[in-house]
Amino acid sequence: MNRPQAINKMIDSIKRLPGIGPKMAERLSYHLLKVSDVEVERLISAIQSARRQMQVCSVCFNVGEQDPCVVCQDSSRDKTILAVVETPQDLLALAKVKEYTGLYFVLGGALNPLEGIGPDDLRITGLINRLKNGTITEIIIATDTDSKGETTALYLAELIKHFNIKVTRLGYGLPVGGDIEYADEVTLSRAIAGRRVIDT
Amino acid sequence: MNRPQAINKMIDSIKRLPGIGPKMAERLSYHLLKVSDVEVERLISAIQSARRQMQVCSVCFNVGEQDPCVVCQDSSRDKTILAVVETPQDLLALAKVKEYTGLYFVLGGALNPLEGIGPDDLRITGLINRLKNGTITEIIIATDTDSKGETTALYLAELIKHFNIKVTRLGYGLPVGGDIEYADEVTLSRAIAGRRVIDT
Repeated sequence: MNRPQAINKMIDSIKRLPGIGPKMAERLSYHLLKVSDVEVERLISAIQSARRQMQVCSVCFNVGEQDPCVVCQDSSRDKTILAVVETPQDLLALAKVKEYTGLYFVLGGALNPLEGIGPDDLRITGLINRLKNGTITEIIIATDTDSKGETTALYLAELIKHFNIKVTRLGYGLPVGGDIEYADEVTLSRAIAGRRVIDT
Repeated sequence: MNRPQAINKMIDSIKRLPGIGPKMAERLSYHLLKVSDVEVERLISAIQSARRQMQVCSVCFNVGEQDPCVVCQDSSRDKTILAVVETPQDLLALAKVKEYTGLYFVLGGALNPLEGIGPDDLRITGLINRLKNGTITEIIIATDTDSKGETTALYLAELIKHFNIKVTRLGYGLPVGGDIEYADEVTLSRAIAGRRVIDT
């Protein structure tokens, strides 16, 4: 006896989500068959209405209710400093740190040659364009401190050195190999205070 | 800056799924914001059409395309033996074993006093009713071998002993392909208790 086709299809769709393996997908699928209509509708409508309401900011590529987003619209922010992050989650983590009052740019990931993610898959051209008007005098590269994030940081530092812009990296108060979005606020604020110039 | 309300709602809905923690829910939510409409529609319609097409068998409580399910409709099966399993996934696993030709009954879980799951939350009354016509002469209790499954097995064995039915439990021992040095003591002592003569 084989599993019904419709369940296999559901498992396949769920398996495409990041971090969900085949066994987890199976477990979630049978759960979703078992729960009430109300429960499933709540899940589906939460996904759909978030997708409907959320917009990608055309300036920093953060996800938010407005375009430009609240950070980019905030005139009290220091427009000469730009923190480059991998994801909107990383931006949210940094936004909790009061010491940082500059702006942001969401790259959309990190370079990862093993998975075929190269410069064209990230918003690197957009970042370079944003530097051209000369307002920004410092870039803090706040990519993750794993090997992909480090590679991305070096790559960006190399690109940006042609501009007259100071390029810094978050200070190593961060645990190496860690994920920025999981860092606590104190560690993050130390990392900002201890940021350093990338020598290329 | 706080996370937009719509994203929080999506995270909350996803966090309700079994085995999904807060960080995983956040990661999945941002992923679902980022992917294409086609991708999200595929996921949602796979869930909805599986829920539409799948039925719970009114005889064994398996999930399938028909009611009664293909197993219960199969006249070549031995109607005197009934394997009691916790979930439809367990049923599918057992159905791959050609040696077993009997029928099934899906309990819908296991007793778990710590999480407030008692006999009334499982299909125990349904199971007992099924035994009443006297067709079944053996019940194989195929609940999981963790403490919840064991408790459930003992509870069922106690209930069923009032009927003139042989109650068995799946044999314990080493998993095939396993490494003795990694087996736990309880499994090893059961394997020794259940040792068998090698026929040569």
